[in-house]
Amino acid sequence: MQKKYVFMFDETRNPNSESSLFLLGNKGAQLAEMTNAGLNVPYGFIISTEACNKFYGSGKKWPNGLGVQVKTALVKLEKKTGKKFGSVKNPLFVSVRSGSYVSMPGMMDTVLNLGMNDETVEAFAKLTKNPCAALDSYRRFINMFGDVVMGVPHSKFEAALDKVKEKAGAKFDTDLTVEHLRDVVQKYKEIVRKEKGTMFPQEPWKQLEMGVNAVFLSWNTPRAVSYRRINKLRNDAGTGVSVQAMVFGNMGNDSGTGVSFTRNPATGAKEHYGEFLVNAQGEDVVAGIRTPKQIDEMRKTNPKVYKELVGIYGKLERHYRDLQDFEFTFEKGKLFMLQTRSGKRTAQAAVKVAVDMVEEKLISRQEAVLRIKPIQLDQLLHKQLDPKAKEKAGLIASGIAASPGAAIGMVVFTADRAAELSSKGEKVILVRNETSPEDIEGMNAAQGILTARGGSTSHAAVVARGMGKCCVAGSNDIAVSESLKQFSVQKKNIVVKELDWVSLDGGTGEVFLGRLPLVEAEFGGDIKTLLVWADSFSRLAVRTNADTPEDSKRAREFGAKGIGLARTEHMFFAEDRIRAMREMILSDAPEQRRKALAKILPFQKKDFFGIFKAMSGLPVNIRLLDPPLHEFLPKEEKEIAEIAKEMGVSVGKIHDTLSALNEFNPMLGFRGVRLGIVFPEISEMQVTAILEAAIEAKNQGFEPVPEIMIPVVASVEEMRSMKELVERTAGKVFKEKNRKVKFHVGVMMELPRACLTADKIAEFAEFFSFGTNDLTQTTFGYSRDDAGKFIPSYIEKGILQEDPFQVLDREGVGELVRIAVKKGRGARKNLRVGICGEHGGEPSSVEFCHSAGLDYVSCSPFRVPIARLAAAQAALKEKRKTYFEDV
Amino acid sequence: MQKKYVFMFDETRNPNSESSLFLLGNKGAQLAEMTNAGLNVPYGFIISTEACNKFYGSGKKWPNGLGVQVKTALVKLEKKTGKKFGSVKNPLFVSVRSGSYVSMPGMMDTVLNLGMNDETVEAFAKLTKNPCAALDSYRRFINMFGDVVMGVPHSKFEAALDKVKEKAGAKFDTDLTVEHLRDVVQKYKEIVRKEKGTMFPQEPWKQLEMGVNAVFLSWNTPRAVSYRRINKLRNDAGTGVSVQAMVFGNMGNDSGTGVSFTRNPATGAKEHYGEFLVNAQGEDVVAGIRTPKQIDEMRKTNPKVYKELVGIYGKLERHYRDLQDFEFTFEKGKLFMLQTRSGKRTAQAAVKVAVDMVEEKLISRQEAVLRIKPIQLDQLLHKQLDPKAKEKAGLIASGIAASPGAAIGMVVFTADRAAELSSKGEKVILVRNETSPEDIEGMNAAQGILTARGGSTSHAAVVARGMGKCCVAGSNDIAVSESLKQFSVQKKNIVVKELDWVSLDGGTGEVFLGRLPLVEAEFGGDIKTLLVWADSFSRLAVRTNADTPEDSKRAREFGAKGIGLARTEHMFFAEDRIRAMREMILSDAPEQRRKALAKILPFQKKDFFGIFKAMSGLPVNIRLLDPPLHEFLPKEEKEIAEIAKEMGVSVGKIHDTLSALNEFNPMLGFRGVRLGIVFPEISEMQVTAILEAAIEAKNQGFEPVPEIMIPVVASVEEMRSMKELVERTAGKVFKEKNRKVKFHVGVMMELPRACLTADKIAEFAEFFSFGTNDLTQTTFGYSRDDAGKFIPSYIEKGILQEDPFQVLDREGVGELVRIAVKKGRGARKNLRVGICGEHGGEPSSVEFCHSAGLDYVSCSPFRVPIARLAAAQAALKEKRKTYFEDV
Repeated sequence: MQKKYVFMFDETRNPNSESSLFLLGNKGAQLAEMTNAGLNVPYGFIISTEACNKFYGSGKKWPNGLGVQVKTALVKLEKKTGKKFGSVKNPLFVSVRSGSYVSMPGMMDTVLNLGMNDETVEAFAKLTKNPCAALDSYRRFINMFGDVVMGVPHSKFEAALDKVKEKAGAKFDTDLTVEHLRDVVQKYKEIVRKEKGTMFPQEPWKQLEMGVNAVFLSWNTPRAVSYRRINKLRNDAGTGVSVQAMVFGNMGNDSGTGVSFTRNPATGAKEHYGEFLVNAQGEDVVAGIRTPKQIDEMRKTNPKVYKELVGIYGKLERHYRDLQDFEFTFEKGKLFMLQTRSGKRTAQAAVKVAVDMVEEKLISRQEAVLRIKPIQLDQLLHKQLDPKAKEKAGLIASGIAASPGAAIGMVVFTADRAAELSSKGEKVILVRNETSPEDIEGMNAAQGILTARGGSTSHAAVVARGMGKCCVAGSNDIAVSESLKQFSVQKKNIVVKELDWVSLDGGTGEVFLGRLPLVEAEFGGDIKTLLVWADSFSRLAVRTNADTPEDSKRAREFGAKGIGLARTEHMFFAEDRIRAMREMILSDAPEQRRKALAKILPFQKKDFFGIFKAMSGLPVNIRLLDPPLHEFLPKEEKEIAEIAKEMGVSVGKIHDTLSALNEFNPMLGFRGVRLGIVFPEISEMQVTAILEAAIEAKNQGFEPVPEIMIPVVASVEEMRSMKELVERTAGKVFKEKNRKVKFHVGVMMELPRACLTADKIAEFAEFFSFGTNDLTQTTFGYSRDDAGKFIPSYIEKGILQEDPFQVLDREGVGELVRIAVKKGRGARKNLRVGICGEHGGEPSSVEFCHSAGLDYVSCSPFRVPIARLAAAQAALKEKRKTYFEDV
Repeated sequence: MQKKYVFMFDETRNPNSESSLFLLGNKGAQLAEMTNAGLNVPYGFIISTEACNKFYGSGKKWPNGLGVQVKTALVKLEKKTGKKFGSVKNPLFVSVRSGSYVSMPGMMDTVLNLGMNDETVEAFAKLTKNPCAALDSYRRFINMFGDVVMGVPHSKFEAALDKVKEKAGAKFDTDLTVEHLRDVVQKYKEIVRKEKGTMFPQEPWKQLEMGVNAVFLSWNTPRAVSYRRINKLRNDAGTGVSVQAMVFGNMGNDSGTGVSFTRNPATGAKEHYGEFLVNAQGEDVVAGIRTPKQIDEMRKTNPKVYKELVGIYGKLERHYRDLQDFEFTFEKGKLFMLQTRSGKRTAQAAVKVAVDMVEEKLISRQEAVLRIKPIQLDQLLHKQLDPKAKEKAGLIASGIAASPGAAIGMVVFTADRAAELSSKGEKVILVRNETSPEDIEGMNAAQGILTARGGSTSHAAVVARGMGKCCVAGSNDIAVSESLKQFSVQKKNIVVKELDWVSLDGGTGEVFLGRLPLVEAEFGGDIKTLLVWADSFSRLAVRTNADTPEDSKRAREFGAKGIGLARTEHMFFAEDRIRAMREMILSDAPEQRRKALAKILPFQKKDFFGIFKAMSGLPVNIRLLDPPLHEFLPKEEKEIAEIAKEMGVSVGKIHDTLSALNEFNPMLGFRGVRLGIVFPEISEMQVTAILEAAIEAKNQGFEPVPEIMIPVVASVEEMRSMKELVERTAGKVFKEKNRKVKFHVGVMMELPRACLTADKIAEFAEFFSFGTNDLTQTTFGYSRDDAGKFIPSYIEKGILQEDPFQVLDREGVGELVRIAVKKGRGARKNLRVGICGEHGGEPSSVEFCHSAGLDYVSCSPFRVPIARLAAAQAALKEKRKTYFEDV
């Protein structure tokens, strides 16, 4: 029996199956599915991908039988439409489209109106009573076919058209008369003859053959091949070809065309939404010359079609079980569906539709959870600039959308000024070349942060996200001068001075001059419902990175199941503490250091107590001091002089310490556990503060669950030594306070060596928490503060698919995580494993954490909902195992 | 049958076997072996380690039968010696010593003269006719036994002795009379009674029991347990106890004692070497009150003993097959061997003895090769400061022994000054806080380098070793002031000014004031012979890291089999090139950059040509540009102004570029392949220069074997892109020159991610060369420029066993190497794999490279002989598989 290569739209039982998708291509499968759904789709047929593969297998010739099968299908198509291919009375025109198992946008253009020639166009002109439209269709067809199928440069046609328009004094294509258009058609045909040495094919069957061949050949253009390589698509899949009858909305007032959504895509409300034009084709809607009408007006103009259309909404949603958008055309009162797809919607609409559809029993809770892109939730949690106002306002600069939300305030250029004005109730935007830990107070005081340098994981970006504060980072458009108290935007010739108002959109990275109005955001209702469902499917728990009771409370409201990372160093920058910290650093002997540390202890204890209280009953993972000590010392001469005076030491002494602590590569320097080993009294103080705070919390009736985390560990000996220190200190505290609390000691896994020796480290660590920021830095050898110099270029050139500081690199960093989990659990069965890097709130990375078998992810408070959703999706996707699905 | 716990010295057939070692302990096995060798060792017996383990297994009691076996052994001992334990006529005294399967120095002191009491001491006094000596032995015994066995603090005895000496007006112990000594003995016994509430045991058998128990118990002192933990020794091995008859050299003029070597340990010459004292005990030699005589004088004083002794030399060497040192005592004309061991020797002697012994057929070539510690060869390759002169001269400061050899010169503080004076024929020492690439010319001009900061892998150290130039790095003793042109040594209150003379010993890290005389070193003769033998056993080849034809030639003389790393960046710092380099960096567009690069090309080509010529027939691995571009830019305002003028750009422009290129963590910044991807024209120029130079060399009849190495690769996409660039460029060059050369493209493996994805990278890389310096930095997260702040403390606290920048870390870095080799060879069977980090010349690291299956190591020229020897030893050791052997 001969192989079946050609399938009519209504010939496929299960067009949604994987095998259909591979056989028919996505476009063909879609058309077959719409037909199966009982939608009135213009009829047609699909040439399978197998035909395409055979075509390549046999020297670029149609396989045996394909010709006969296409001709048979064409006859069926003619019968169904009542039109005839090449007929000079009622001609059939068709579209020819490509389509592989996944969409490869831009690989091959569509050819419309195939079947037109010098004769059929005249027949069409008579039928439509619109010779202009007919001729315009014909000249477009010659252009499209000439370009896509025959390889005549589009520009040649363009030039000819322009010449005619110029001569005719016509501004738009639509200004051309029938005579002009006949001239254009003539010229187009001549171009084809001149360029290709052959006449433009008049024979419709020949046109079809050539069109099909062109689609086949487009599968292996260099562009398509490299697209597949980059996107890791199968090279052996081949493309299908769909051939579909054209329908026309420009056949009179009983004809028309339109676009609609089954629900409101902006709000999610269940209402008709869309627009249409009578006696028009799709291009007319796009061209925007005539103003389309709202769908509901059709009730008056075309009541029969309207009634049918209203039925379509329900039919589509029942079949596709989602908010759909669709294109339709009605030809002489007959409604055709041209295309439908899942409708794009705002985050708000997405959540409302998903929750509503569960209530309408259209979809399951699982499906609802899978419907929302986790990252969309970000929009729902931050105040937004009013989109309408943005359009009107002047965009003056762009940068990296580092931390979403909106911020409006007066520009200031130092952290001190920000704090000063903020304390007076002013709203300010802190603008810096880049921020440093000393700017923390100012950042906290500001509405938003704008920096000229640094990327999506720069200090400004990380801290801002941690604070849930709007931040536009690394805006190359601006030049900041702290001394002149201004920033300038050269390409706009604008200078913005201190106290000028600006508005930032941290979700898009836009900077506007002036005060734009805001739109409120809220966490509750549908989104809360959805996330409760999500949690029920997740294997991963979601914790938060929080350093203060306020952040802890907020994160808990967002559903965090504990703290995965409480940094202790931010606590040292407040004015009352930094002095004692500096005194400690400038001490020469352990005793002197202990004295200075004793002053810091009550502050730390208070901080920890507040966090234990806010997180009562949930684990609180506290990381011991991490950054190099020089970060705490003053850098400016004036400050140095002040501190020297205060502390009664010489300026030279402070300079000596600064120079001794200065580092070539601070990221790889004297920090983390290295501080704790060399200066054990620092760790002793911190552990004492943590455990005393926990005892105090317990005494007051809270349930503290402290976890003590050792940072920057590279070897088991460090961990052994710190574990001993913690236990020794705990013994002392418990004896002194005459009360015990349960606590855990674990390790921040952020160096390759720790991962490679995880089995040994797990002997002394009760938990692992992957610090994937630093692990990414060391695994790639990228400094995240410097990688901005080459990462954009790397992404542009395809060396990197994504910024590994944003999306966890599964191949390298992920391999270390897998190695560490395997070795760690091998040595300690009940080892708790989490992640606390920035990746903890990034959906693809959360999915990786799920698949790597982690117990939890931890992220900044505002990312908690996103991570919860991503965790649920990872669990649900794993069950489905549909590798090509991209929800 | 009862378990045998006690072995007479002559009862063990094969004392050298592993099982004997574990059964008898190292000390016991040694004594048994000496006895077996026919040496007249004072007789005795060994209590096995099994007895010790049973002791612990049964509540610290002697196992059944041990008491009887010890008593039986004692009777045999009495019979053999003709003396009797506790006899008041001819008393037997014994020593009691510990000994486990490996030496644990300092774990347990020896107890000598056990068996002495108030009565036997009098008998001994009569026999020796020397009551003073007898009583002195007795009081020493009480002290030793009281301290070691009974736990009376040594200080108590010391105080009592001092009191008696003071009262007697005696300066030395030997000034004491019999009466004084009797007083001391009495006081010592009282101390024991007071401290322990018990009499000093007079019963010899009781003394023996207690002595044996003390040895058993010493196995589990906290000190011993932690020593085993740190050194990874077996906790279940137990200690043996050897009980041996004492012999006495102080029995008159027919008695004596001495120490000798079987050959001259300084030169290796085959001659009698050593000294002796008549009528004396070992302590007398050590005490240094009487001057010992040269061995050959014994021919006159004790001819019979001398004749016997001469026979011993040959006997020892035939048995031990090595240069031995040994201690002997003759008691009434009878010669006893007390101890022998492999004699410590200079590098020169070590090599000569090994080679001579092969010629004497005492040992095989394999054994000769295994005899030399590779690191010793360093001494043979560099000029040395005369050791005698060093003793007399004033040591003013110490630092890290960064690069061996000696250097004598006038102190200068800038590279320019060094170059200036050197060009006038002056010898200078460059003293800097630390060096930077801009100092290269000055370092090259200097005799040696002294820095105040930086460690064993600092810039100064690495470059100096590469140049084979003496360097003392990171001397904390000195404070350098470039502006005052001086350095000061506070603790010596010395200021050294420009043009003062100093002498450096790079092998010890010592700095001396003044000009010390030198001793010459030479590469040839025995050492060459030995290394030829070594090469015949090696699996690893040894290449060199060399950037110049001079270094290449030198390394080839030292036996290098090619270049494993030619850095291209050092080539840019000469004055005629740096300008073009800076022009390139300051260029805004690829075209401008290409123009500047075109100026550099001829220089690079010339450099490469010279290297290909010097290394004709051997592979030359050239690494493309590695360091961040800012290293090439001037830092000082004056220089910046000059360059701006020269290049016709504004000073601001240069500042802008400097600030744009400035990096927080340059080690993890915009460098290596990242430069090549973002600015492909740089790599194109370098590849062109390499291949044009190779063609030129080929045209002139040489055999160039170029390998092009891509640095700092983290992902396969980088490698793919660079491979394409190299091949594209090669095609162009070959076409232009109308000639081809074979070349290879490979990758420097220096980032964890490269190792983890080695299978993918190997698809595009023909070779891997591990850059273990950077790989260590990223694996540990240690910046080698900053790690000096904590590595010393880490080593002191036992967190690190060794500086991982000196000795390759097998557990972490090594694991990445193993992963990469496995994955890489899995993807490309004939992948060539080497190492070019500093570790390539470090013996333990070379051994690792051998076991990891690498093809070669590469190291600085002066390390080549060391690596050759280490490579051979690794191969030989692998065959022997004696895991406890430490040659």
